[in-house]
Amino acid sequence: VSAAGTAHAQQAWVNGLPADTIAVWDRGLQYGDALFETMACRDGVARFMARHLARLHRGCERLGFPPPDDAQLSAEVAAAAGAGAAVVKLLLTRGRARARGYAPRGDEVPLRILLRYPAPAADAALTAEGVRVTVSPVRLGENPLLAGLKHANRLEQVLARRALQDAGIMEALMFSSSGALIGGTMSNVFLVHGGVLQTPQLERCGVAGVMRAVVLELAAQLRLPVEERTLGAAQLHEAQELFLTNALIGIRPVRELEGAVRAVGPVTRVLQAQLAPLLGARGEAAHG
Amino acid sequence: VSAAGTAHAQQAWVNGLPADTIAVWDRGLQYGDALFETMACRDGVARFMARHLARLHRGCERLGFPPPDDAQLSAEVAAAAGAGAAVVKLLLTRGRARARGYAPRGDEVPLRILLRYPAPAADAALTAEGVRVTVSPVRLGENPLLAGLKHANRLEQVLARRALQDAGIMEALMFSSSGALIGGTMSNVFLVHGGVLQTPQLERCGVAGVMRAVVLELAAQLRLPVEERTLGAAQLHEAQELFLTNALIGIRPVRELEGAVRAVGPVTRVLQAQLAPLLGARGEAAHG
Repeated sequence: VSAAGTAHAQQAWVNGLPADTIAVWDRGLQYGDALFETMACRDGVARFMARHLARLHRGCERLGFPPPDDAQLSAEVAAAAGAGAAVVKLLLTRGRARARGYAPRGDEVPLRILLRYPAPAADAALTAEGVRVTVSPVRLGENPLLAGLKHANRLEQVLARRALQDAGIMEALMFSSSGALIGGTMSNVFLVHGGVLQTPQLERCGVAGVMRAVVLELAAQLRLPVEERTLGAAQLHEAQELFLTNALIGIRPVRELEGAVRAVGPVTRVLQAQLAPLLGARGEAAHG
Repeated sequence: VSAAGTAHAQQAWVNGLPADTIAVWDRGLQYGDALFETMACRDGVARFMARHLARLHRGCERLGFPPPDDAQLSAEVAAAAGAGAAVVKLLLTRGRARARGYAPRGDEVPLRILLRYPAPAADAALTAEGVRVTVSPVRLGENPLLAGLKHANRLEQVLARRALQDAGIMEALMFSSSGALIGGTMSNVFLVHGGVLQTPQLERCGVAGVMRAVVLELAAQLRLPVEERTLGAAQLHEAQELFLTNALIGIRPVRELEGAVRAVGPVTRVLQAQLAPLLGARGEAAHG
């Protein structure tokens, strides 16, 4: 796909109006002073919209943005999504800089950017058979003030994806600077160990994914023992089951970790079965 | 100053042409996938331009941007700076995203954004008498792959400046997640201890400032003993002299740290005297 072709297949809105530019003075560009959400949409409905909005609100509170207007955002996302299947990315910046320098003045007006992308091709085989995963050489810096948020400072993920040269490897798992397993570049990770479902706690870094929260709730409904905890390399490699989650892909089992074949286990399958009705008609990604 | 007023006093160029918007698809906006330099300019000449370009090249190499064209950038910075005194910020993004997702494809075309700001008012008193400084409650995440660079992932600095409510405090010193002193939100820090000039090593985080490099060279010329090393809170508070540097302000002594009065010492004064001829006519900031 050429750059022009890509642009053609995509659409953008700024503050509710069709537009595909923003001011160079925007703090989102200057400092990555922005938050985002990426939503799977079908016929104008964004899956798990309430959860996306809740995380966005947490981000706004942490960064000191005024609370967004949920009704306005929901209407704009619905309009952007349109008919059929699509991925809509909402980028909320702090707005135009009032002066030079890092300090926000506090009277900035946040900017709402909506980007509509074609839905990715369905990947039922990846959901059924699993994906190949490696461990990233890039480690994540730790900052509790930013942990859990989907903010726009994503150079670490960019570097990790750039280091991932093999197109057959879907994801790279990242550890923090202090050696804790955090998650993939664009996914959260779950382990099963001795019948217990485990996922990294995200107090120091990482993104608290919407699908991660859904899976934790499903596990509670199924009365599976669950632990959010510090996990290291040993726990990762000794896990009986491994799977990845994100808002678009649902649950994908890991069938290979750093070249070693992994079995897809029963806890993963039970959670996938429980999740399927929540994902919509197409099962995996509710679009494709 | 109103938003409109601010905009009026500022000018912007994109890829060498007057323009003040960029595409919402730019990776600089999406991920903070960008580098920047902020230069003090007078009559079209950017002070320490070669050093700014050298750091930009290091950043491009680290992030995998193609090497920038120095002649082109220099000409564009000179044109943007114009007559008189100005601050010019050069923001170099990886360019427009070729597809959704963190992975660069490698064929992106970087975007050159130049922003011209009025020169700040001269602050000779701050250079002479010193500034008041505090310690930030915000700690810096550690990532050796990004350390030293002036990249556009600056939420930590935004949060630190936001936490600094007292307008009389010029700067907040930041420690890393592992407890090492790194520098101010927009400056590097130097200590004098037992006749030795010390500054934090920046192997894990922080920005390797242009003025920091200039001061290290001046110290070598003066045969002052110099250490780039790991420094903690104890060393900060026990230092006999403290000063801050950045490309715009030169050297500013710290006259108060967290409410405690500090003496401005002889090493600081010798370095200021040595630096003054390099800063141009106005001494401190070569503009104002």
